[in-house]
Amino acid sequence: MKGCSFGREGEKSLKETFSEISPSDFFYRNRDLAGFTNPARALYSTVRELVENSLDACELESILPEVYVRITAYDPLEEAEPKKYVIRVQDNGPGVEPERLPEAFGKVLYGSKYKLRQSRGMFGLGGTMAILYGQITSNKPVTIETSVDGVKRYYYKLMIDIEKNKPIIVEKKVGEGNGLRGTVVELVMEGDYFRSSTKIQEYFKQTALVVPYANITFIEPSGKIFYFLRTTTEMPPPPKETLPHPHGIDVEFMRRTIRQSSDESLAKFLSKRFHRVGLKTAIKFLQYAGIDPNRSPKSLSDEEIVNMVSAMHRYEEFLPPDAGCLSPLGENILAAGIVKELAPEFFTIVTRPPSAYSGYPFIVEVALAYGGKILENGIKLYRFANRIPLLYDEASDVSWKVIHEEIDWKRYRIPQDAPIAVIVNISSTRIPYKTVGKEYIADRPEIERELKNALRETLRKLSAYLSRRSSEEHEKKKINMYLKYLPLIANFSKELAKKSRPPNYKRLLSKGEEEERQKKIEEFTDS
Amino acid sequence: MKGCSFGREGEKSLKETFSEISPSDFFYRNRDLAGFTNPARALYSTVRELVENSLDACELESILPEVYVRITAYDPLEEAEPKKYVIRVQDNGPGVEPERLPEAFGKVLYGSKYKLRQSRGMFGLGGTMAILYGQITSNKPVTIETSVDGVKRYYYKLMIDIEKNKPIIVEKKVGEGNGLRGTVVELVMEGDYFRSSTKIQEYFKQTALVVPYANITFIEPSGKIFYFLRTTTEMPPPPKETLPHPHGIDVEFMRRTIRQSSDESLAKFLSKRFHRVGLKTAIKFLQYAGIDPNRSPKSLSDEEIVNMVSAMHRYEEFLPPDAGCLSPLGENILAAGIVKELAPEFFTIVTRPPSAYSGYPFIVEVALAYGGKILENGIKLYRFANRIPLLYDEASDVSWKVIHEEIDWKRYRIPQDAPIAVIVNISSTRIPYKTVGKEYIADRPEIERELKNALRETLRKLSAYLSRRSSEEHEKKKINMYLKYLPLIANFSKELAKKSRPPNYKRLLSKGEEEERQKKIEEFTDS
Repeated sequence: MKGCSFGREGEKSLKETFSEISPSDFFYRNRDLAGFTNPARALYSTVRELVENSLDACELESILPEVYVRITAYDPLEEAEPKKYVIRVQDNGPGVEPERLPEAFGKVLYGSKYKLRQSRGMFGLGGTMAILYGQITSNKPVTIETSVDGVKRYYYKLMIDIEKNKPIIVEKKVGEGNGLRGTVVELVMEGDYFRSSTKIQEYFKQTALVVPYANITFIEPSGKIFYFLRTTTEMPPPPKETLPHPHGIDVEFMRRTIRQSSDESLAKFLSKRFHRVGLKTAIKFLQYAGIDPNRSPKSLSDEEIVNMVSAMHRYEEFLPPDAGCLSPLGENILAAGIVKELAPEFFTIVTRPPSAYSGYPFIVEVALAYGGKILENGIKLYRFANRIPLLYDEASDVSWKVIHEEIDWKRYRIPQDAPIAVIVNISSTRIPYKTVGKEYIADRPEIERELKNALRETLRKLSAYLSRRSSEEHEKKKINMYLKYLPLIANFSKELAKKSRPPNYKRLLSKGEEEERQKKIEEFTDS
Repeated sequence: MKGCSFGREGEKSLKETFSEISPSDFFYRNRDLAGFTNPARALYSTVRELVENSLDACELESILPEVYVRITAYDPLEEAEPKKYVIRVQDNGPGVEPERLPEAFGKVLYGSKYKLRQSRGMFGLGGTMAILYGQITSNKPVTIETSVDGVKRYYYKLMIDIEKNKPIIVEKKVGEGNGLRGTVVELVMEGDYFRSSTKIQEYFKQTALVVPYANITFIEPSGKIFYFLRTTTEMPPPPKETLPHPHGIDVEFMRRTIRQSSDESLAKFLSKRFHRVGLKTAIKFLQYAGIDPNRSPKSLSDEEIVNMVSAMHRYEEFLPPDAGCLSPLGENILAAGIVKELAPEFFTIVTRPPSAYSGYPFIVEVALAYGGKILENGIKLYRFANRIPLLYDEASDVSWKVIHEEIDWKRYRIPQDAPIAVIVNISSTRIPYKTVGKEYIADRPEIERELKNALRETLRKLSAYLSRRSSEEHEKKKINMYLKYLPLIANFSKELAKKSRPPNYKRLLSKGEEEERQKKIEEFTDS
C-alpha cells in the first residue's frame, strides 16, 4: 500500500490528538447536515431559511406578511454554474432589536426559537448557516437592515468568526426609518440556480398554498417575477408558548427547573411550571409518587428527582397536552389549495383530534385527492410541517412509511397506481425532525398512529366514491344498451304482434334515471 | 381558539427573547438528530457508538481488537420496557490519556476525529451523546476505566454539565494496570431491548462480517452470549491522515491555513500544506492564477484569497486525491462474508478505481449475490461505510437511489423480484453522511456515478450467468426428454426393422453432455 503524501513535513504521528471546535465550526465542517450539501441545495436552503424567518417574525405579531425575495447573478456576464448569486429577502415584520442583531445573525446556537411554541424555525441555526455558507463561498459580509419602530433604521455589515463562533461587525450605520418596519437580509453566495430552480419555485408555490394570507414576490435571476398574492386577510392567531407537559420531561430538565425556581413547596412548584398541572393535580400526583407536597423542591436528593420524574411518566391522570396553542391549516385553506393546484375529480379532508407525543401536542391533517388535473398514475405526496413544505428525502418520512408500508390498499379496492395525491400537514410545538435541514419527520408511534387513522378515513371515503362512480357508470352503460336495443326489440315485438305502434319503452328508461337520482340523494343523506 | 395554560403566572409576553445554548444543550434538546429518538433506538445507538470508538482506537495502533459488550437490566425484577439497562463496552485498545479523558467523554464537540483520515467516527459526538443520554434518563454518572501503558489504570466517574458543556468529575482513582491496556465504559440508561434486539444483533453480525480480524463478544440481557470470533489476523494498515486536496477547500479554510503558517512564499506554502501539490505544481498553478509564487501568503488581500481559491477549484492539473490512505474491504473479506451469510447460488464483486468528491478520495465496492440461502424475492441491500453497517433510513441512501431509480433492470433481463442481495461498501476520509446519527449517505454525483458503474458491471455478470444457466437448463431438459423417449423409439425401431437389438442411442446422449462440458470451459476462458 502506498502511503499518502503528507507534504514535506514528513510523517505525522498517529498518536491521538484532541481538539475542541466551536458549534459554528462544527456546522461549517459538516454543512451537509443542515441542508448545505452542494451549490444547488445551498441556494434552496438559503431562500427557505430566510423566508421562514420572515414568516415566523410576521406571524408572531399578526402582521400580514409581505415577503420579497430576489436572486440575481453577482456577475451578470458569468454564465457557468455554479456561480455567485446575490440573495435578498425583505419583510415587513417586527424587525430585530439592534443590540441583539449581530449575535442573532452571526452566532450559531443563539436565537429566539428555543421555546415551546409552534414555529417554522426550531434549531436557531438556519439563518446563520445561510450567512456562514455565503461567507465561506464568497468571503463577502452579509448586509442586514432592520427597523423595529419605523423611526430609526439600522444597517449592519457582518462577518462570522467561525472558530470563535461570534459576529464581527464590519460596518454599522443608523438612518431614517421612514415609517417602515421589518428586516432585509442580503448576502452573496455560490449557488446553482439552474439545478435548484424547480425546487425553489415548487417551494414558493407550496408555501403560498399554506400561507394564503401572505404576499410573496419572487424574482429569479432571469428577471422573471413570480407573484403569490394573498387570497385572505384572515391570519392564524399568533403562536403561544406553552409550559412543558409532565409526560415529556427528563431528569436534566427537572434539575434545571428546580435550580431556577424559588417555590416553597413541591405542589406549588409543579403547578406553576408544568402544562396541565393545577394545584389539585399536583397534590394528587405527589401523593401517588409518595412525596410530601409541602417539601421544598430544592430539598430533593438526586435519587428522589429521578423517582419523581419516572413517576410523572407513569402517572396517567395528567390531562393530555392542550392543543389550543397550535394552528393547523384548517379545511378551508386546504380545500382552496387543493382545488386551485390539483383540480381533482374528488377530494376529502380529515383533521384528527389533537394528540401528543412525549408531552408535545400535535395535530394531523390529511387530504386525499383523486383524478382531475393529477394526470400521472401513482401516489403523489405533499408534506407540510408547521406550514413548511418539505421537499427532500420523502422516502424516509413517517408519512411515506404509513402510505407505503402500513396501509393495505387492496382493502379499499384502490389500486396503488390510481391517480392520487395525499397532502399531509403536521402542526406541533416541536416537530420531531430527524435532520437539522428539516427534510423529514421521525416515525414517532403516536404520529404514525394518527396519520394512519386519518389516511384510512380518507381512503374509505375515496373507496365509497369510486364504487358509487363505478355503479353509476354501470347504470349508464345499461341505459345506453337499452337505448340501443329497446327500440329494435319494441319494433320487432310490434311486428310479431302485428300491432301498428311499438310499446312505450321510453317509460322504462326514464324510470332507470329516476332510480339513480333517488340513490344519489340517499347516499348524500347517509354521509 | 382556547388559549394554552401558562401556569399561574399569567400570559407571557410575545416579544422575542434571545438566548444562547451550549452545543451539548443543543444536542440534548435535539437528540433525534444523533439517533437517540426513543429508548429502543437509543440503546442501539449507544452500543454502536461505543463499539465503533473501540474499533477505531484498536485500528489506529494495529491492535487486533477484542471487544466485549454486555447489556444487563439495571433492576433484574423490572419487566416492562422501556427500563433501565447497564451497558458495558470493553476493549484492548491504546487507552485514553487520563488528562484528556474527562473532556473526551464529557464534552460535546471535543474529540480526536476532526481529521482527514478514514475512521468510523467523524463528528466527535457519538460517545458523549451516549453518556449524555444515559445521564438524562438515569441520572447516574458514567464509569470509565482506562490504561495507556498497562502500568497504571485510571477510574473515573463523570457527569456532564449540559448547560456549560463540560465534564464534572464525580470520582477519580488510580490503580494497578496489571499489564492490561484499553478502555472500559459502563453507563446506565433507559432503553428498550425488546424493540431493539433484532437491530442490535444484526449490527453485530454485519460488523463481524466486515471486521473479521476482531473478536467480539456480546452478552444480551437474557444472558445469552454471542461470540463473533476472528477468522483472520490480517488487519488493514492503520488509517493515515492526509492533507486537504486543493479541489476541496474553501475561503475560510484558506484564511485559517494562511493565519497559522509562517511560510515565506506562496509556492512553499501550497506545496507544504496541500495534498498532491509539490513545489513544481504549486508554481505552475500560481502562474495560471496570475499570482507571484514568491509573495508571502500573509500579504494576500481578502479579494486575492477568494480569487486564488476559485482558481484552485478550476485548475485541472492537480493530481486527483491519492486513495492510498483508504482501506477498502477487499474481495477476500467480502467474498468470505457473502459465502458465510448468504451462501448464494452466484455472486460477483466489483471494486471501482479510487475517485474523489470535493477533494475527498473514496472507493466504492459493490457485491451482488443471487439465489441460494437468500430466500425472499426482491432486492435486499446491505450498506457499509468505513466498515460501519448502516441499518436505518435505507430509502434515503444514495445506494437505494441508484438501485431503484437509476438502473434499468429490464436491460439486464433480471426481474426486480429476483432473489438478489446487493452489498455496498464506501470508504473515504470523509463519508458525506446527511445525519449526525450516520444513517445514510448523501447523493454526491461522483459517488452516485461510481455506484452506478459498479452495479452495472455486477448486473452484466449476473445476466450472463442467468442466461447461461437457462440455456443449461434447456439443454438438461432436452436430454431428459431424450432419456425418456429414445429407448422407446429405439425399441419401436428395432421391432419395425425386425432386428434383435435396438440401435445404440446412448452414444447420442453422451455426446450432448460432452458438448455441454465443452461450452462451460469455453465460457470460463472467456470471462
